[in-house]
Amino acid sequence: MQTKILLEENDIPTHWYNVVADMPSPPYPSFGPDGKPLKPEMMLAIFPGNLLEQEASRERWVPIPEAVREIYRIWRPSPLVRAHRLERMLGTPAKIYFKNESVSPAGSHKPNSAVAQAYFNKMAGFNRLTTETGAGQWGSALSMAAEMLGMEARVFMVRVSYDQKPFRRSMMKTWGAEVFASPSELTQAGRAVLAKDPNSPGSLGIAISEAVEEAASRKDTNYTLGSVLNHVLLHQTVIGLEARKQFEKVGDYPDVIFAPCGGGCNLAGLSFPFFADKAAGDKRARNLRIVAVEPSSCPTLTKGVFAYDFGDASGYTPLMKMYTLGHDFMPPGIHAGGLRYHGAAPLVSQLVHEKLLEAVAVPQLATFEAGVMFARAEGIIPAPESSHAIRACIEEALRCKETGEPKTLLFNLSGHGHFDMASYDKYFAGALEDYEYPESAIHEALQRLPKVPE
Amino acid sequence: MQTKILLEENDIPTHWYNVVADMPSPPYPSFGPDGKPLKPEMMLAIFPGNLLEQEASRERWVPIPEAVREIYRIWRPSPLVRAHRLERMLGTPAKIYFKNESVSPAGSHKPNSAVAQAYFNKMAGFNRLTTETGAGQWGSALSMAAEMLGMEARVFMVRVSYDQKPFRRSMMKTWGAEVFASPSELTQAGRAVLAKDPNSPGSLGIAISEAVEEAASRKDTNYTLGSVLNHVLLHQTVIGLEARKQFEKVGDYPDVIFAPCGGGCNLAGLSFPFFADKAAGDKRARNLRIVAVEPSSCPTLTKGVFAYDFGDASGYTPLMKMYTLGHDFMPPGIHAGGLRYHGAAPLVSQLVHEKLLEAVAVPQLATFEAGVMFARAEGIIPAPESSHAIRACIEEALRCKETGEPKTLLFNLSGHGHFDMASYDKYFAGALEDYEYPESAIHEALQRLPKVPE
Repeated sequence: MQTKILLEENDIPTHWYNVVADMPSPPYPSFGPDGKPLKPEMMLAIFPGNLLEQEASRERWVPIPEAVREIYRIWRPSPLVRAHRLERMLGTPAKIYFKNESVSPAGSHKPNSAVAQAYFNKMAGFNRLTTETGAGQWGSALSMAAEMLGMEARVFMVRVSYDQKPFRRSMMKTWGAEVFASPSELTQAGRAVLAKDPNSPGSLGIAISEAVEEAASRKDTNYTLGSVLNHVLLHQTVIGLEARKQFEKVGDYPDVIFAPCGGGCNLAGLSFPFFADKAAGDKRARNLRIVAVEPSSCPTLTKGVFAYDFGDASGYTPLMKMYTLGHDFMPPGIHAGGLRYHGAAPLVSQLVHEKLLEAVAVPQLATFEAGVMFARAEGIIPAPESSHAIRACIEEALRCKETGEPKTLLFNLSGHGHFDMASYDKYFAGALEDYEYPESAIHEALQRLPKVPE
Repeated sequence: MQTKILLEENDIPTHWYNVVADMPSPPYPSFGPDGKPLKPEMMLAIFPGNLLEQEASRERWVPIPEAVREIYRIWRPSPLVRAHRLERMLGTPAKIYFKNESVSPAGSHKPNSAVAQAYFNKMAGFNRLTTETGAGQWGSALSMAAEMLGMEARVFMVRVSYDQKPFRRSMMKTWGAEVFASPSELTQAGRAVLAKDPNSPGSLGIAISEAVEEAASRKDTNYTLGSVLNHVLLHQTVIGLEARKQFEKVGDYPDVIFAPCGGGCNLAGLSFPFFADKAAGDKRARNLRIVAVEPSSCPTLTKGVFAYDFGDASGYTPLMKMYTLGHDFMPPGIHAGGLRYHGAAPLVSQLVHEKLLEAVAVPQLATFEAGVMFARAEGIIPAPESSHAIRACIEEALRCKETGEPKTLLFNLSGHGHFDMASYDKYFAGALEDYEYPESAIHEALQRLPKVPE
């Protein structure tokens, strides 16, 4: 029985899909961190003009440069896989498919945007990039992309990850990047933190501040972000565009799509092109459900509010209208590091708010249970982030078993877990816990939302 | 420019290729460890009859069971990749291709045989498998294969690897295997070693003894080996059979094939089907060179002798005619753990002896340099074993640059380096060394070869 649905390299999309063109209402404007209208020069200090154009674009299709497609050829099109063995293990009449984004050399979907961001920066005359990384997936992807385009990369890696995930760091160095533990002595932001607390474990917020400060202060250097922003989500739509073509090839179409959701870029990447079908009135998509799966310990979409907030913890970024738990919400140290984010991408948030996307939250132990079940059925060891989607998909497949519905389910295998085995060890040792964030703490964090003109 | 040459799942070979059918002279017989003719019952105590038939087969084609092909579908056919970016980096007129065996869920070519061995054991009524593992690639592959066939697996992992490579161990546990540090208290062989030295770091030889002892003493349990034996090499020929079809698809054919060589199974797997062309008088294969690449610190094929020797360090296995450095030769602790073997597969050895295969040895630092160069060009971080083939291939490509010859080069990317990042770290820190084994030590080890009737 056919397992992998493959495409040829000529099938790599020639354009990214911009969901803004099909949204029922236009995106909300962003504001400066001071609540006043956002000044273009502020953004141009850290991003190139061509990417800012993409950020604001309302065109449905944005061309993918041939040089970017050339690099995509190394791992794209990624396989769409029919999980026959998982179906049999569950005894479900549902058909389960997954898009295998773990096949990129960096091990996740992140290079889809990293390569594009590096390329557009290079075209705009910048030869040096900074970024931050927590769990290390984005930092790895950017390091690889920069090396492939002959650019320099400097990665600020949250101190606690730098110490606990040394092999992600080694990967970045193999691709020639400079990696520094954040807070570092290299920036004012870093030095200020270290002056107060020389043993600071760091945070994504601090690392963002360092990467932005360096990009803003050097003319040859720009900043890159791995999720949340419109242009990042745009680049990820190659995932769903390919998947749509792969379903066509086997004459099938998904009834429900599941993707893990932290910032929201892999969810957007897989699902937006199917959302386009829905918006276009395609009858196959009429009952399509798109489900964002988040950790119940960081329940942005299911328990947060849709409001203006900062993208970072420290309040340096513009204010964006999005689902948020409050920018200083500190999620517990769960092992799906990529999903520990207080907000969600504005485009994803708006579609959830308009009830065009759904969201569910799943507890940590259930995700590891699902991840191990998947690994035993299909071989591939999933990233803890991906296991969130796997969990929700398995639950749907089991509901299908009860009702007898032969639904077609699709989830995003956003990455492999080769650099997360320490988390698996803790799971097997019974050392992982579920953590439900108390409503009161969320309520408290939401009191500190910044004010903006309505 | 096309980068990946893909095949559909229907192109997964239906038969393995048995090189014995095309060798100019028949394989040498093996003898019991006592030097007397090998008794079938001795082998039947630890291997199933169907695999022993394959071990002795002279048929050119051996059918691949449909159930094995079903599991192969998860990652096979593996891509043949044109390394355009590496070619440009080197400025060579040569065309460089690699077969990407790192795409299996276990991360190497090893599952090609692990799945087959598990399947044939199951067909023969055995439901439990033992094996040993050093670096962890084979133990991972067998754990995955056993789980997929609903069988139990017990892996004896060399103590020093068990402690230093905890994540390979976690991988095996994720696939449901039992993993024990060897020497263990579970076997007489293990207890005997521990009685003498409670802190023994273990060795592959000791781990083999433990796995064999347990298989021999339990009726429901058999032993599996990850390389060296004829049937293991046979299973690996899916690699070369696919590659041959992929070259046909693009109208090209290799002039030189490079593969790392420890036991010899990935070299055999990639090259034997091309050797078949040569044996059949195919004119494209007339000048084909096949090059085994080994570490200069463990130079079995380039500095060893072609003689009868034990397959393990302790002298428990049958005596096989092969290139050997002496069964008690202790290779230094280089980081390509999969290539630290005193012998080489009898079939590979015989073809090298008959000058139908070539062998070269490369020093450790040069392999890491090549591995990093490859990662920076092509993205994929190679296993240190694979970097041996990459090094030799790069040297050939640079010779082509001097002579202007547009040769077609092919190497086996036998695995990825995701579980070898500690070795990369040591390389970057300047903490790795080259090690040339002194001729006198080899000479001395060769004095201890066992005697057999000629």
